[in-house]
Amino acid sequence: MDGVRRIEALGKHVILELMDCDRACLCDREFLRTTLLAACRAAGATVMGDSFHTFTPYDGVSGVIIIAESHLSIHTWPEYNYAAVDIFACGNSLRPHKAVEVMVRELRAGDHSIVELDRGILNSLVAHEGK
Amino acid sequence: MDGVRRIEALGKHVILELMDCDRACLCDREFLRTTLLAACRAAGATVMGDSFHTFTPYDGVSGVIIIAESHLSIHTWPEYNYAAVDIFACGNSLRPHKAVEVMVRELRAGDHSIVELDRGILNSLVAHEGK
Repeated sequence: MDGVRRIEALGKHVILELMDCDRACLCDREFLRTTLLAACRAAGATVMGDSFHTFTPYDGVSGVIIIAESHLSIHTWPEYNYAAVDIFACGNSLRPHKAVEVMVRELRAGDHSIVELDRGILNSLVAHEGK
Repeated sequence: MDGVRRIEALGKHVILELMDCDRACLCDREFLRTTLLAACRAAGATVMGDSFHTFTPYDGVSGVIIIAESHLSIHTWPEYNYAAVDIFACGNSLRPHKAVEVMVRELRAGDHSIVELDRGILNSLVAHEGK
């Protein structure tokens, strides 16, 4: 039931492993930047800035987009057809799974896995709020 | 035994929760940028670029530093004396726990927790390498 949050937390961190991706996509910095921006839009995020870089010798790409609601990042290893994607979303307004759908589809991932973490669990923080 | 890696993976992702931090530090964008850069140096990382932003109404800061070995990020919630830090390190040359030490010390965290994830587990990827 999506409408029920079992743990109140400041942020939701979606850790996405993309396996068996299209190798050419994983080397294409502009494609990856455009795709991660599309994932931001799909999630309903507000983009604040970005930084993308290509690395030798396999033309892997690292990129991060800062959003008003935290960040999205990608690191690619074309030699393994693999990309590591993080979607860190604070507040309740974002739809991180829409971003997941965009990344899986556009990188043509043959397989993927998702781990979700709550960040800043409120029960552990409220006690300190008045400090 | 630090010298033994039980799972061969492309990256090590250290997820750091910093509780009960100094509130003034969590609002100070330049301090946070300087501190995260110091954490990169302590870990032995090569800095490629960064992006830092301040958010209203509580002066929380979001910042990411792209390193040749992946990225470090921070998101702060001064109203909860809380910061979420990620240290994503590929390869075996980095010392991510040195970065953890810098962040815990400089933000004067009264409490912290660490979760470590392997990213890009090689056993699951090698089968696709020849595609």
